[in-house]
Amino acid sequence: MTNKSDIGLIGLAVMGENLALNIESKEWRVSVYNRTVAGVEEGVVEGFVSGRAHGKKIMGFNNIEDFVNSISQPRKIMLMVRAGNPVDELMEQLYPFLSPGDILIDGGNSNFEDTARRVRESEAKDIYFIGAGVSGGEEGALHGASIMPGGSAGAWFEVRPILQSIAAKAEDGSPCCEWIGPGGSGHFVKMIHNGIEYGDMQLISEAYFIMKHLLEASNEEMAAYFETWNEGKLKSFLIEITSKILKYKDAGGDYLIDKILDTAGQKGTGKWSVINAMELEMPLNLIATAVFERNLSARKELRMEASSIYHREASQKTYLAEELIKEIYSSLYASKLVSYAQGFNVLKYASDKYGWRLNLASIARLWRGGCIIRSAFLNEIAKAFEEDRHLSNLLLAPYFKDEIVSALPFWKRLVAVAAKEELPVPAFSSALNYFYSLTTNNLPANLVQAQRDYFGAHTFERIDLPRGVFMHENWIGKANSTKSGNYII
Amino acid sequence: MTNKSDIGLIGLAVMGENLALNIESKEWRVSVYNRTVAGVEEGVVEGFVSGRAHGKKIMGFNNIEDFVNSISQPRKIMLMVRAGNPVDELMEQLYPFLSPGDILIDGGNSNFEDTARRVRESEAKDIYFIGAGVSGGEEGALHGASIMPGGSAGAWFEVRPILQSIAAKAEDGSPCCEWIGPGGSGHFVKMIHNGIEYGDMQLISEAYFIMKHLLEASNEEMAAYFETWNEGKLKSFLIEITSKILKYKDAGGDYLIDKILDTAGQKGTGKWSVINAMELEMPLNLIATAVFERNLSARKELRMEASSIYHREASQKTYLAEELIKEIYSSLYASKLVSYAQGFNVLKYASDKYGWRLNLASIARLWRGGCIIRSAFLNEIAKAFEEDRHLSNLLLAPYFKDEIVSALPFWKRLVAVAAKEELPVPAFSSALNYFYSLTTNNLPANLVQAQRDYFGAHTFERIDLPRGVFMHENWIGKANSTKSGNYII
Repeated sequence: MTNKSDIGLIGLAVMGENLALNIESKEWRVSVYNRTVAGVEEGVVEGFVSGRAHGKKIMGFNNIEDFVNSISQPRKIMLMVRAGNPVDELMEQLYPFLSPGDILIDGGNSNFEDTARRVRESEAKDIYFIGAGVSGGEEGALHGASIMPGGSAGAWFEVRPILQSIAAKAEDGSPCCEWIGPGGSGHFVKMIHNGIEYGDMQLISEAYFIMKHLLEASNEEMAAYFETWNEGKLKSFLIEITSKILKYKDAGGDYLIDKILDTAGQKGTGKWSVINAMELEMPLNLIATAVFERNLSARKELRMEASSIYHREASQKTYLAEELIKEIYSSLYASKLVSYAQGFNVLKYASDKYGWRLNLASIARLWRGGCIIRSAFLNEIAKAFEEDRHLSNLLLAPYFKDEIVSALPFWKRLVAVAAKEELPVPAFSSALNYFYSLTTNNLPANLVQAQRDYFGAHTFERIDLPRGVFMHENWIGKANSTKSGNYII
Repeated sequence: MTNKSDIGLIGLAVMGENLALNIESKEWRVSVYNRTVAGVEEGVVEGFVSGRAHGKKIMGFNNIEDFVNSISQPRKIMLMVRAGNPVDELMEQLYPFLSPGDILIDGGNSNFEDTARRVRESEAKDIYFIGAGVSGGEEGALHGASIMPGGSAGAWFEVRPILQSIAAKAEDGSPCCEWIGPGGSGHFVKMIHNGIEYGDMQLISEAYFIMKHLLEASNEEMAAYFETWNEGKLKSFLIEITSKILKYKDAGGDYLIDKILDTAGQKGTGKWSVINAMELEMPLNLIATAVFERNLSARKELRMEASSIYHREASQKTYLAEELIKEIYSSLYASKLVSYAQGFNVLKYASDKYGWRLNLASIARLWRGGCIIRSAFLNEIAKAFEEDRHLSNLLLAPYFKDEIVSALPFWKRLVAVAAKEELPVPAFSSALNYFYSLTTNNLPANLVQAQRDYFGAHTFERIDLPRGVFMHENWIGKANSTKSGNYII
């Protein structure tokens, strides 16, 4: 009995190894297992157990039945494998050896609908299933991640001690791991987290781009600006590492940033966020812009061809550093607010739609440590949602309203300057336009509705009739006795 | 024999009825059938046959077997029902009565992947299946639509005479119906058509919005501007009806446009375009912006609340109509070019990915008549693709390059003015920023890659190494023996 492990972990890529080491460091006994196919991933378990895990309370297995039997009941088994079929395959392999009440925890970046399905399937077999988003990269996995568990609520109290022990701690000491909600909510929240991460990175890159082109700032100067910002309201992991990256010299003594090719990769969670927002019919413009910008960056040859056809002159104007930095700072800060407002609005709407009862303040809090988007201003977001539980948009909270009003004169000036100087600031611009549309009582969508009714009889509402009364106008004066509405145009 | 119909049509909503009448008007005999469930859609067939189809060579059926038997072989049966399950259900009902070589034509807005599957399923039963996008709304269905058929190529020569006879004719007399390609390509092209339609409508609404707010133009004045534009390069159906809509007075003598609520609806093909572009990792920013703007417009209460919190002053500046109109025109025109460049790029990329061998010039041509986005400048697009079959982006074609260069000074000024005046022009701005990014040799994506490698060991390429060589830097100086890459962050 006492020789049994407290938890099992499957999948010994870097995240899995680091999580196992993290768990063990909190005095839990860990069993690890890795798929072993002849010639493929052979010796991974042995390599880990005799290497980084040497001398630790970590037992390695190449046989899944032995692995399962080595864990004390109710068993907790964490899967750290690639999202998609590998998770389902592993579950099928595990089921024969599990007992009722055992708990599977998927710590990968699974699609939230897959997770919802797996919760149902597992529970039908009396097995608990938790889909836990884990953010923080390698470092977070090893020293404290942000963990977003959702699914079988009945298993939460069993796994909470372990998960909270390995989670990062926020500045106030609270663990960055709290119960999210039922079904696939944990993975949905993680997905939006990653989308926001895409947005934050795009915003920072635009700040860098404008500094570089309009101030002709050196890497050291730019690093200093980001360092200063990291002492204020923008204090965050990504701003901090940006400063370090800009100063970093490679082995040859050159600034590495200037040697890196401008083709951004992606692994999918950014685009999933946008696809889900599209399905929910919720604006998530800033993240969509960030994802598309990565797509465009990856098409390097096309851009080289395009830039050779359209000659662009360098700016002839001289900008005062002090003024321009304030404009860039304001654009970055305000656009970030817009991005979080959009992201949390998607969470709120999904919560209503799927009945998750998400606690948005709690989600903001557990992102304060461990994860890639950890930042000081998540405290303000948590406060805003606590002060008004029915807050319909972050930008309407008094604190953020004041912040936006202060930033606006500088933000809009920068967007205008960039337009004139022919420099792309797609995310700053997108955020500004979203803010303008959001705060416009009467958008020109009346014309869109008129057009739709004109050519497709899609009907419209009128300002002088109650909502929900849909009218069709016979615009071209021809009688038409057929009914409409059954056909999707 | 001679009493048999040339074609059958199922689904008597407005599009189905109009198509049946259109086909009959070209001297084809038509059988029609509509689902009849007790109490639901009873009497639809009788109503049509004794009403609008009275005295025409249109035979109505309430029994599917009789309907099928009334059509001459190889049977051509067009389905005009709601996309999704209804199509599959209908196919299952039809199969028992069909003979090898019969042809099903789905004229709804089906998902292109569903169509690809249906082609495979039908062909396995020796039935041909064609997924045909049909654009043009009620009017097009009745008097000539733009038709985009794809799927079982072997059936094309059987259905071509009928489909081309009911298609709209371009100004040069050619029918707006040509074979698109295999699988779901017809519906994919129709989907992108609809996405472009969303974009065009958003762009027109922004032009209207700026005229209204910065020129304080009357509806009649605005109608006149659009009328003038409709005589030039922007000549198109949507510009034409915009002019008519702006002048239109309702029964009470008021301008109807001013009574229509600014909450735009959608039926899905816009968001599908964006979702598919996201999946393909191809930028489709302008359409995404248009879809999100419709989403935001629909949240009227949120916008009313937001606009009451953020007070916005009307512009104090006076703008010269002549200058501003030129800027608005240039923004609309150039942004439209960007939108089509993005849309055709998605088509090109999908064609490569799925092996469709799409003829982009032919697609541009068949959109010249019948459909909602019909316009003069599709001729220029067709020419550009014909002159250079390997054109990697429409904006790189010499003709369009000159157009963009001419428009740019006015376009960028308007985007800057709107930013300063706090007026939303999300699509004009998005297009401008895409153009800037596209033509930027060195984007700040190097910083994004550095960040990804810093926190997730996602690696990067270097400007001084060949493409495809991926480097990882040990940014924080700690040794780490684990391998990376298996875990999606």
